[in-house]
Amino acid sequence: MTYRYKLTIEYDGTPFSGWQRQTERPSVQQALEDAIFAMTGETVTTQTAGRTDAGVHATGQVAHFDLTKQWEPLRVREALNFHLRPHPVAVLTVEAAPHTFEARFSAKARHYEYRILTRRAPPVLERNRVWHVSKKLDAEAMDHAASLILGTHDFTTFRSTECQANSPVRTLDKFSVRAEPDHIVISASARSFLHHQVRSMVGSLRLVGVGKWSPRDFRAVLDARDRSRCGAMAPSAGLYLTGVSY
Amino acid sequence: MTYRYKLTIEYDGTPFSGWQRQTERPSVQQALEDAIFAMTGETVTTQTAGRTDAGVHATGQVAHFDLTKQWEPLRVREALNFHLRPHPVAVLTVEAAPHTFEARFSAKARHYEYRILTRRAPPVLERNRVWHVSKKLDAEAMDHAASLILGTHDFTTFRSTECQANSPVRTLDKFSVRAEPDHIVISASARSFLHHQVRSMVGSLRLVGVGKWSPRDFRAVLDARDRSRCGAMAPSAGLYLTGVSY
Repeated sequence: MTYRYKLTIEYDGTPFSGWQRQTERPSVQQALEDAIFAMTGETVTTQTAGRTDAGVHATGQVAHFDLTKQWEPLRVREALNFHLRPHPVAVLTVEAAPHTFEARFSAKARHYEYRILTRRAPPVLERNRVWHVSKKLDAEAMDHAASLILGTHDFTTFRSTECQANSPVRTLDKFSVRAEPDHIVISASARSFLHHQVRSMVGSLRLVGVGKWSPRDFRAVLDARDRSRCGAMAPSAGLYLTGVSY
Repeated sequence: MTYRYKLTIEYDGTPFSGWQRQTERPSVQQALEDAIFAMTGETVTTQTAGRTDAGVHATGQVAHFDLTKQWEPLRVREALNFHLRPHPVAVLTVEAAPHTFEARFSAKARHYEYRILTRRAPPVLERNRVWHVSKKLDAEAMDHAASLILGTHDFTTFRSTECQANSPVRTLDKFSVRAEPDHIVISASARSFLHHQVRSMVGSLRLVGVGKWSPRDFRAVLDARDRSRCGAMAPSAGLYLTGVSY
């Protein structure tokens, strides 16, 4: 008999090699599993909805794990946050979950946000939190371009050559661009994404934003199904996993 | 013959002992004056609109200084940001200014914002950027209380005992509270503020937010002109100097 817990988690990805546990390099997974051990004495393996890369942040990551002992969910949250304190990781919510729930495989949609700072001066209060592009970007053209690749496509162009997914076909449910003061904010939602897909799409959208590509060029690059046509990939610091739908 | 430059500046106050230059402790003023020296070879003393305390941030601080040589303002901005790079300080704009302009004495209003994170989990992406109050606050009651102290008053209650201003009378032009998701944001504007005034008012507003004080109690505390009636002062990490009007 084990008890399953579902967590939503916020983290600053800057000091981590990514979500996934790696020998000799700090990971969010390790920080979390160490905190679970400190609290319960149980060695668990957590499963997560999105294995974010080094430097990528989360405001709504979801993970689950099982314990042999039953705990009050609120107590789990308080204790984990206590043990996580040295790390920039916080547990926002904890719920008891049925064994049919799996953070990774039950997910119906992953939601990402990408933030670009568009001013000459470098980021200060947002250091490691944005991509600094030191010129104004045309948010309307970027939003138009983004709308042209909604739906189901072969995303080979926007996929890391190291991507291990069986198929390059994904369904983009949301991909939109809005302007905020000195910022461009890009939202992307899909059941799942290919490796580096969001950062590849954002890097290419930047070329639309500076007027180098038209929205039609952006769409043509997708249709080419050719990784070499992708714009330079956007850095990890601007990317946030903001939520997971089940 | 000298040339005057007006700067708007953003900084992360966390590593600094405050704006003002101090021997043996890092200050924003020193970082800026060192950058000016690195660029021009001239040793200058900058004058600022608001001498923020240790840990207080700015998104719209204003300062001025004089150089014996005339520079293109855009070149000053680029060069200062280059030399400031190791520090979390950025120059947002540089303008040539007449000698009648003085960052401190020409200011007609200072604008501050105070950010409170109101959730159980500690701040992660906003570490050192907010005051963490781990319960929900009643923004409407806080806003009502804030409105009751607008205008010209003796602010002795909300003034540091170390404040060196001649008079405790100030005119509060704006003091309002709004709710954002998981946050309370407080805006305050005045021609000038007493030492620790914003943080003292915010600390007291928190007591209204948790229901310990009514808005009328908050006003009564102002009227008492008694520092000992002030609520515990809010920490510096949540405070931002957002702009100065001339």
